[in-house]
Amino acid sequence: MKAIPFADQLILPDLQTSGIIALSGGADSVCLTRVLCQMGCRPVLAHLNHQLRGNESDRDAAFVVQLARAENLTLELDSVDVKSRTEEASLENVCRGIRYEFLLRVARKHHASWVATGHTADDQAETVIHRILRGTGLQGLQGISPKRMLGENVEVIRPLLKVTRSEIEAYLQQLGQSFCSDSSNLDSQFTRNRIRHKILPVLKEESPALVELLGRLAEQAGEVQNYLGGLAESALRDCEAARAGRTIVIKRKLLPSNDVLLKEMVRLLWIRENWSAGDMTQNHWSSLVAMIRDGQARADFPGRIRIINDGRVLLLEPF
Amino acid sequence: MKAIPFADQLILPDLQTSGIIALSGGADSVCLTRVLCQMGCRPVLAHLNHQLRGNESDRDAAFVVQLARAENLTLELDSVDVKSRTEEASLENVCRGIRYEFLLRVARKHHASWVATGHTADDQAETVIHRILRGTGLQGLQGISPKRMLGENVEVIRPLLKVTRSEIEAYLQQLGQSFCSDSSNLDSQFTRNRIRHKILPVLKEESPALVELLGRLAEQAGEVQNYLGGLAESALRDCEAARAGRTIVIKRKLLPSNDVLLKEMVRLLWIRENWSAGDMTQNHWSSLVAMIRDGQARADFPGRIRIINDGRVLLLEPF
Repeated sequence: MKAIPFADQLILPDLQTSGIIALSGGADSVCLTRVLCQMGCRPVLAHLNHQLRGNESDRDAAFVVQLARAENLTLELDSVDVKSRTEEASLENVCRGIRYEFLLRVARKHHASWVATGHTADDQAETVIHRILRGTGLQGLQGISPKRMLGENVEVIRPLLKVTRSEIEAYLQQLGQSFCSDSSNLDSQFTRNRIRHKILPVLKEESPALVELLGRLAEQAGEVQNYLGGLAESALRDCEAARAGRTIVIKRKLLPSNDVLLKEMVRLLWIRENWSAGDMTQNHWSSLVAMIRDGQARADFPGRIRIINDGRVLLLEPF
Repeated sequence: MKAIPFADQLILPDLQTSGIIALSGGADSVCLTRVLCQMGCRPVLAHLNHQLRGNESDRDAAFVVQLARAENLTLELDSVDVKSRTEEASLENVCRGIRYEFLLRVARKHHASWVATGHTADDQAETVIHRILRGTGLQGLQGISPKRMLGENVEVIRPLLKVTRSEIEAYLQQLGQSFCSDSSNLDSQFTRNRIRHKILPVLKEESPALVELLGRLAEQAGEVQNYLGGLAESALRDCEAARAGRTIVIKRKLLPSNDVLLKEMVRLLWIRENWSAGDMTQNHWSSLVAMIRDGQARADFPGRIRIINDGRVLLLEPF
C-alpha cells in the first residue's frame, strides 16, 4: 500500500464512527474515498445525479457504481431533476441545497455522525477570492469551514481542505485510479470557473504560494470570528430578557459598549431567529448599530424585521 | 468656486490647527492641496526631492514651487540623494522612511499637529491586494490607516482614502489644474505597478466595485483589530508583573484563556518592546502561543528573543 503523501494535512473525522462520503466521481471525492478506505474506514458512498449534463451525468453515476463495487462499499444513489425545479441564475445554490438534504437523509438512514466532502485547498482559495470580489467582511473571509453541523448529531467535514488539487491528482495517478471530469467546470458563464481559469492564474503568477496563503487567511478569520462569536453569545445572554411571543426584548442598559461586539451580537440574533441574515449588507448592520446607539425610535430592516427603541428596552420583531 | 463632488467622502483633519501636506506634485497630493485650500485651510506644503528620476524629479520640484506660489502657501523643499544610501531592493521602504522623517521635521518646525498625505481609495485597494498576495492576517488587511501617530502630538491623516483616483482626476480636470506624472509608476519591476496595471484590471472586470469593497473590508478589519487590540492591552495589564531589566515577566496563571487573545497580546508586547515584529510570521506567532500553552521550557524567536517557561512565570527577553 502506498503511503499518503499529504497525510499530515488531512482533517480527519472520527474514523471509529460511521460516516458518509459525498461522491461526485470527480478527482477530489474519488481521492477522499481512496484515502479514507486506506485509513481503515468503511464509509457509505452517496451520489446524487443532478441530471444537468445528460450522458455525462449518467457516465458519472456508472463510474461511482463501479468504484463502490471495487472498494466493496455501500452506495446510496439518487437522482433529481433539478432543472425543472429552478431558474438558471440560482442553479448552483439550489443544487447545493438539494445535495445537502440528500446527504443528511443518507446519514440518518445509516446512523452516520459525519458526512465528508471533497473540498480542497484550491476550492478554499477560489471561495475566498469569490467572497472578496463579491464584497465580504471577516465572516465571509472564513470561506469553507473545515467542519460544520449539517443537522442534529451530523457534521459535515472537509478532510482535504488543506490539500491542493495538484497533490490530489498526483496521488490518484500514482494509484492508477481514474476519475470523471466535469465539462461544466470549463463553462465560463459560472463565476467560479472564471475565478479558477482566469483570475487565479494571474494572481498566482505574482504569488506562487497564494492557495496556501489564502487558506491561512481563512483559518485566521475563522479563529477571530469564532472568538468574537463566543463574546457576542455571552453579551446576548447578558442583555436579553424573556421574549414576548415573536418579539425579542433587549435591555438597553446592558448592551455591549463596543460596536464591533454589538454588531456581532445582533448578527448572531438574526441567525438564531432564522431572519434573513443573507439580505443584510455591511451597511445594514452598521446602520442597525447606529440606530441602537442613537436611540432612534424605529426602523425596518430586510426580511421584514422591525426594531423599536422603546425607552429602556429594544424590541426586535418580524412584521 | 466649484463644489467638491466627493466632499462627503473626505476624512478631514482639524482644520483649525496647523498642518502639513506631503506634496509630490502628482494628481493625488495636488488635489489634496486644492481641496484643503478650498475648505479655508492654510497648510504648509512639504516636498522632498528623492533625486531618483533625474530631470523628471527636478521638473516636479519646480512644479511644486509654482503651485505654492499660486496658492500663496509656505513651501518646505528638501532634497536627498537616496540612491547613494541604499540598495535597489529595499528602495521603496528606505524612501518611505526618509520621507516621513522629513515630514515630521517640517511638522515640528511649523508646530503642526497633522501631516496629510494624498493616499486614495485605489492606493488602499492596491495595498490590500498586495498584502493578500504576500500573505496576511487580519492585521495586514487593514491596509493604509486613515489616521496614525507619526510622532508625539503629530498625526498622519489620509483625507482622500475613500476617494477614487478617477474622481480625483475628474475634479482636477474640472478645475483646469495640472499635475505631474511619475514615469516610474509604469515600471513593472515594482510589484505595486504590476498590481495596478495588470492584476487590478482583471479583478475589476469581475467586480467593478472592487475598490470600494476592498476599502470596506480594510475598514472592518481595522475595527475588529482595534477591538481585539483593546482587549489584548487589558489582558496584558492583568498578567504582566514588574519587569526585571530587559526581561518581561508574565504570570502564567493570569494568561488569557483564549488563543486569539493570547496571540494578540504577545504581538502587542513585541511592538511595545520594539522587538522585530515584522520578522514574525503567522507560524511564529502560532508556535509561540503553542509553546506557552504546552509549558515547553524554552524557545528562541526571530530578532533574538528568548522565551523561558519558568514554572509560575514566563520570561521574555532579548539575547
